[in-house]
Amino acid sequence: MKNLDEMVDALLRSYDEQGGINFSEVNSFPNRQSVICALKDLQSLIFPGFNTAEDLERDGLRYATGERVNRIVAILTGETQKAMIYTLRDTKVKSSACFGLAEKTVLSLIEELPEIRRKLHTDALAALNGDPAARSMEEVILSYPGLEAILVHRIAHFLQKNGIPLIPRIMSEYVHGKTGIDIHPGAEIDEYFFIDHGTGVVIGETCIIGRNVKIYQGVTLGAVSVKKEFHDHKRHPTIEDEVTIYAGATILGGSTTVGKGSIIGGNVWLTESAAPGSRIYNTHG
Amino acid sequence: MKNLDEMVDALLRSYDEQGGINFSEVNSFPNRQSVICALKDLQSLIFPGFNTAEDLERDGLRYATGERVNRIVAILTGETQKAMIYTLRDTKVKSSACFGLAEKTVLSLIEELPEIRRKLHTDALAALNGDPAARSMEEVILSYPGLEAILVHRIAHFLQKNGIPLIPRIMSEYVHGKTGIDIHPGAEIDEYFFIDHGTGVVIGETCIIGRNVKIYQGVTLGAVSVKKEFHDHKRHPTIEDEVTIYAGATILGGSTTVGKGSIIGGNVWLTESAAPGSRIYNTHG
Amino acid sequence: MKNLDEMVDALLRSYDEQGGINFSEVNSFPNRQSVICALKDLQSLIFPGFNTAEDLERDGLRYATGERVNRIVAILTGETQKAMIYTLRDTKVKSSACFGLAEKTVLSLIEELPEIRRKLHTDALAALNGDPAARSMEEVILSYPGLEAILVHRIAHFLQKNGIPLIPRIMSEYVHGKTGIDIHPGAEIDEYFFIDHGTGVVIGETCIIGRNVKIYQGVTLGAVSVKKEFHDHKRHPTIEDEVTIYAGATILGGSTTVGKGSIIGGNVWLTESAAPGSRIYNTHG
Amino acid sequence: MKNLDEMVDALLRSYDEQGGINFSEVNSFPNRQSVICALKDLQSLIFPGFNTAEDLERDGLRYATGERVNRIVAILTGETQKAMIYTLRDTKVKSSACFGLAEKTVLSLIEELPEIRRKLHTDALAALNGDPAARSMEEVILSYPGLEAILVHRIAHFLQKNGIPLIPRIMSEYVHGKTGIDIHPGAEIDEYFFIDHGTGVVIGETCIIGRNVKIYQGVTLGAVSVKKEFHDHKRHPTIEDEVTIYAGATILGGSTTVGKGSIIGGNVWLTESAAPGSRIYNTHG
Amino acid sequence: MKNLDEMVDALLRSYDEQGGINFSEVNSFPNRQSVICALKDLQSLIFPGFNTAEDLERDGLRYATGERVNRIVAILTGETQKAMIYTLRDTKVKSSACFGLAEKTVLSLIEELPEIRRKLHTDALAALNGDPAARSMEEVILSYPGLEAILVHRIAHFLQKNGIPLIPRIMSEYVHGKTGIDIHPGAEIDEYFFIDHGTGVVIGETCIIGRNVKIYQGVTLGAVSVKKEFHDHKRHPTIEDEVTIYAGATILGGSTTVGKGSIIGGNVWLTESAAPGSRIYNTHG
Amino acid sequence: MKNLDEMVDALLRSYDEQGGINFSEVNSFPNRQSVICALKDLQSLIFPGFNTAEDLERDGLRYATGERVNRIVAILTGETQKAMIYTLRDTKVKSSACFGLAEKTVLSLIEELPEIRRKLHTDALAALNGDPAARSMEEVILSYPGLEAILVHRIAHFLQKNGIPLIPRIMSEYVHGKTGIDIHPGAEIDEYFFIDHGTGVVIGETCIIGRNVKIYQGVTLGAVSVKKEFHDHKRHPTIEDEVTIYAGATILGGSTTVGKGSIIGGNVWLTESAAPGSRIYNTHG
Repeated sequence: MKNLDEMVDALLRSYDEQGGINFSEVNSFPNRQSVICALKDLQSLIFPGFNTAEDLERDGLRYATGERVNRIVAILTGETQKAMIYTLRDTKVKSSACFGLAEKTVLSLIEELPEIRRKLHTDALAALNGDPAARSMEEVILSYPGLEAILVHRIAHFLQKNGIPLIPRIMSEYVHGKTGIDIHPGAEIDEYFFIDHGTGVVIGETCIIGRNVKIYQGVTLGAVSVKKEFHDHKRHPTIEDEVTIYAGATILGGSTTVGKGSIIGGNVWLTESAAPGSRIYNTHG
Repeated sequence: MKNLDEMVDALLRSYDEQGGINFSEVNSFPNRQSVICALKDLQSLIFPGFNTAEDLERDGLRYATGERVNRIVAILTGETQKAMIYTLRDTKVKSSACFGLAEKTVLSLIEELPEIRRKLHTDALAALNGDPAARSMEEVILSYPGLEAILVHRIAHFLQKNGIPLIPRIMSEYVHGKTGIDIHPGAEIDEYFFIDHGTGVVIGETCIIGRNVKIYQGVTLGAVSVKKEFHDHKRHPTIEDEVTIYAGATILGGSTTVGKGSIIGGNVWLTESAAPGSRIYNTHG
Repeated sequence: MKNLDEMVDALLRSYDEQGGINFSEVNSFPNRQSVICALKDLQSLIFPGFNTAEDLERDGLRYATGERVNRIVAILTGETQKAMIYTLRDTKVKSSACFGLAEKTVLSLIEELPEIRRKLHTDALAALNGDPAARSMEEVILSYPGLEAILVHRIAHFLQKNGIPLIPRIMSEYVHGKTGIDIHPGAEIDEYFFIDHGTGVVIGETCIIGRNVKIYQGVTLGAVSVKKEFHDHKRHPTIEDEVTIYAGATILGGSTTVGKGSIIGGNVWLTESAAPGSRIYNTHG
Repeated sequence: MKNLDEMVDALLRSYDEQGGINFSEVNSFPNRQSVICALKDLQSLIFPGFNTAEDLERDGLRYATGERVNRIVAILTGETQKAMIYTLRDTKVKSSACFGLAEKTVLSLIEELPEIRRKLHTDALAALNGDPAARSMEEVILSYPGLEAILVHRIAHFLQKNGIPLIPRIMSEYVHGKTGIDIHPGAEIDEYFFIDHGTGVVIGETCIIGRNVKIYQGVTLGAVSVKKEFHDHKRHPTIEDEVTIYAGATILGGSTTVGKGSIIGGNVWLTESAAPGSRIYNTHG
Repeated sequence: MKNLDEMVDALLRSYDEQGGINFSEVNSFPNRQSVICALKDLQSLIFPGFNTAEDLERDGLRYATGERVNRIVAILTGETQKAMIYTLRDTKVKSSACFGLAEKTVLSLIEELPEIRRKLHTDALAALNGDPAARSMEEVILSYPGLEAILVHRIAHFLQKNGIPLIPRIMSEYVHGKTGIDIHPGAEIDEYFFIDHGTGVVIGETCIIGRNVKIYQGVTLGAVSVKKEFHDHKRHPTIEDEVTIYAGATILGGSTTVGKGSIIGGNVWLTESAAPGSRIYNTHG
Repeated sequence: MKNLDEMVDALLRSYDEQGGINFSEVNSFPNRQSVICALKDLQSLIFPGFNTAEDLERDGLRYATGERVNRIVAILTGETQKAMIYTLRDTKVKSSACFGLAEKTVLSLIEELPEIRRKLHTDALAALNGDPAARSMEEVILSYPGLEAILVHRIAHFLQKNGIPLIPRIMSEYVHGKTGIDIHPGAEIDEYFFIDHGTGVVIGETCIIGRNVKIYQGVTLGAVSVKKEFHDHKRHPTIEDEVTIYAGATILGGSTTVGKGSIIGGNVWLTESAAPGSRIYNTHG
């Protein structure tokens, strides 16, 4: 067996040789922990009390809010800038230009928060109305993994739409790990969206989901082809308003549209469009 | 773009306007972190050494146990009282009455712990006997997510049965996030219960599960109708003793009963009762 | 109701009575937190910067690496020794023999790390090429749960193969909890392995998986029989090179082989072998 | 030797028997750590950056300041209320009255902070001008123990003057431990006060110290008589403006006055008044 | 200039060359932080609430006390054993004999605690009666550095008297650093002992101090000769009952005795015995 | 009374108005906590095991040492650069020049460490030989505040001599707070230096102290005049080889020299030179 020094040498050589999976030289790569930290602060900004036992009166709320906004802007701008510099490292874009763009985007995210809160209010209402077991708005917000997944998605999607690389994906994978719900930051999701139970749900990058859609655990809204050259195409389905999709159903393909008011049964496998008002169930022996 | 002060103002206005998703004024709402803290202490009370490297001799064990019981009673009574006050905020129930009831329930949970340990012992035995890969009781207790999910369920169910709001759900969603196993605190589950792998399992609020039942990953025991007005009905199936349900099976409906000794195959979709001793498999092409 | 002292007494009696689920007397049982700590250090050794924001120059990297290796060797040898002592507690193997074997195995794991890095490089390439949504190697390494699951598996499998008890399972359940991907440490997995989304994937103890295999969320590679007496048999399928298995498919049985280049469609249920180049899809109404 | 249980019993009996040194029953006693925490926050409010590396721009400073003020008011009001309740426990004063008074005093301390900062500015100037080794205002503020002692004294004295029990003494003993400078919160100290080196300095409860006074290490401004019945009398000396007292000098007595512009030499022992402009030195062989 | 590797090499060589100030090889040396940790636990055992905000009712107090006793016994026995092994490393005393002796001594310290509490009660009374500024027993216990110094001394002295090496000195230097009061663990101090202010007090190894003695800041009770060969002699003075020694006085020599009821004035230098009832003051110009 | 917002405004105005005691705008000011952190790392580099319970074998020691050196160089260079930029902010010196100089000085400090260790070895020997109560080298290193003060001084003095501003003073005030020993970083101190007890010792900026000098608590080596314009003069005494200075002695003046082998008695006041071999004692009534 090699001695310890030889083992360390072998590892160091391996860092040099395996291009592409060696982070040691990249200061500018965004730090996952900082991004998640900022994300938790954003959650607390949206629902004060979501992460910690805060006990604020009106007077203090203004300062606590401002302080939190400051902290988010500082951290998230830094990490976003790193993500941009890293992604653009072979172009001529200057690091100061990245900083300006990063800060502008983060500030516009803060500006968007009241609108995101408004949408989440509709999502929470959808959960309250759609789940007989739900007892109160507060229970939904505090304990429904589906709502946390949507909350994070609405933030990640905003950043993705504004051209920020890497950060949105770090956010979506964080909440994927926590809830088992995997929504790609690119997906467009309208109001009153409800995911029940949620474990195993996959929603692809180019999905478009309408208002008042309800989805159960294990549902996949995926692509048929996974050829790399199609990554700019719409590869994932469109779900129109007021559709319900039961557990384990799989709906695939960029031109597949599930029409308004349809119900897709559990474990259904669907690769073609369904007209509005469809009722599609497996026939089971 | 707005300046920072205007953004903070907009957020504060949003807190006022969006009724129901604003926690800032509610001191009395239970704190998720404290509940989870108490839950981890309960786990360590049930299996000393479960969460930390404890190294206790007989003498010390008494004091460590007493100290832990004290801490749990203090924290959990407080959080339970908050949950009750919050839930009953529009009634005339007094906060001191809530405290009395909360403390009584938490103490009765402590009193129940030896019985809960006894049941978990049967669950661990079921895992040891039911999984060829299981090597020892200790491996099962320390590393099987299914056992952790049942442990938490047996605690949460006791509180739910005693009328405690919110706290049981916070507990069950905690272990759902950790294991991907979603058991509603309302479900009644008998001894020798074994969930293998477990990711994606959903067990609904009004399920009744007998002795010696074995369930694999992705199994749903759910409701057919999710209409809000039925939330007091039995909406989820009954599983009798000695039933095995393989991965991905879906069993729905409050009047659906799977009879004693039945086997339900993988991915089976079942919305009607199965007689005792049934063997139900999908026919696959 | 009993008073507090009586409750504590009842718990203590319960610790004595319920043999097998009482850890209080076992100092030698490995500590989950220490094992996970060492695992995270191993991750950072494989991908510097994976867990923390490290900012190392060439000079410092050697010392930081050596320091990390030392820490891993110290902690993991200790926990491995405990696992061996515990498992062999009824044999005549001496605790010093356990230490020697534990240290030798941990050192050989360190020696294996460059090879593990090389394999993970192929896995990351497979993800980059196989997912149209993947933008860069770094995004894959930092945010794909599938890659983290394989990373941990390659470590756990090495230890399992070298006869270390308990520790590999603690590692695999840790990453199962984080990603929803449950790979038994016994499974043999070749290079260029890609798991997309991953939630609900189960790969059994005696699986053999070839090069360039791609697996989607909810896939089960399981056993038909779970009788305890068969735990030394090959109970799980063999997947040959260049096979793709879509979401929710279930492939069972130790003599089931999916031939080279086959494609198994979503939700397919397969308990017999498939010839090379097969295309197996469900027929859906 | 007793066994462990008997030892614990003996301790518990001792808690019951030794009246007056048993805190176990007193919830309302102020917590030293919380008081010191609030004190450190007050230091950072007075000199942003004093305790931590803060990096604030103008915008953020307002929120960070407001947030800090809120935190101080919350913690210090609570601890002050406890101190008052404890001190008044044998009177009929109500706990709600204590709260009101505590909050009012803490708020008036916040209101006084700009004035305290102004005085500390004069103290720092006195140090800068009085010590040839001092290179800059910043060095004085960051590293002179004398300045930290005065900072804490000016806060503690304000609370003492407003009738708050216990809290001022906890603060003054904290900085005594840190700097070796023991100033009783009751002492009245005017502007431009400079203590150099400081270890061993003692300034008694009823001292009155003028402007521009300079004191060296080991100086005692103490009482002659320490009879309990004189605790309402002025027992400690008066030091008029522009006096310098060198290391180790001892000045005692409530009617002892050191007149304006005097210089008291090292190790001098003085129990009678000195006229303005005195020069008092020991004669040394 | 050397490069980094050469610098590290030079340091490593220096570790080898400078015998006696290199700890790297000594596992068995007691750890300062653990000793101080145990000391703080002992303080909290003596005065519950001394170090933390504890809120215990009668029921819980028993368990918290037992738990604390256990923790102290475990940690302090370990560190004491290390100190003994280290000190006896050139003798034939076995490490297991050290363990037995260490444990026995630590247990007898626990057994002594009620007696130590009783003595500290007299010390606190002496402070309350002797300082006009003292308002209550609680203020004395919580904020008088003199009392903390005596508390630690009474523990350290017990261990020293029982032959424990190193540990008592680590304890006394800890409280010396905190209070500026330096009492050697060997000094024998009777009840009702009061040190006011205290900074700079030095009490030597072979001092004997009677009941009801009062000492002010800067008092030295020291040795005349510091020749190494006299380390077994009584080198420090004897102070009989009811003596008061004012600030800065220096009393030296092993045969120097200050007789009962004497008063020694500030800054007095005394190297000969004083008859009972003496009044010794400096004459000051 | 003002409301909270007005109070915050008043504080913010005060930050603007009181020039010179407002740190909020100065990012470049060195951070006290980082400097102390680096200092503690330096202590552990000099005496491995000084601050923590390290358990290193030969192999690991090299990496741990290298890692620690790296960390110190990174942190201390950064803080030193800040100190230089801040001090030179009104000159034309460039920040990059500061960085270069800072790094060079920190590296030369690392290079000097073996020599500093050698000197500390002589200091520890002096303590061991000079204090009858000292039992072993290890006891001296671990528990004598005098040795810690000299250790820090030898580091701070090296930096001071190399022209680094602010950092040396932050270091010396840290250890002053911990030990009550105040040595200005400018003082030149030769080998075999021993400070016993130490509380209240003050050693001025331009002191020169020879080999084998022994100093007791409360000794001042100070200046006569403290006029600012003399800050470049030698203002503090010279102590030649083999001098002993007993507790509380005061020696003042830049031209005062205590000749080789002299003994200065306790509480002596000396402002003129003493010939070699002098014996100077107070005459006490």
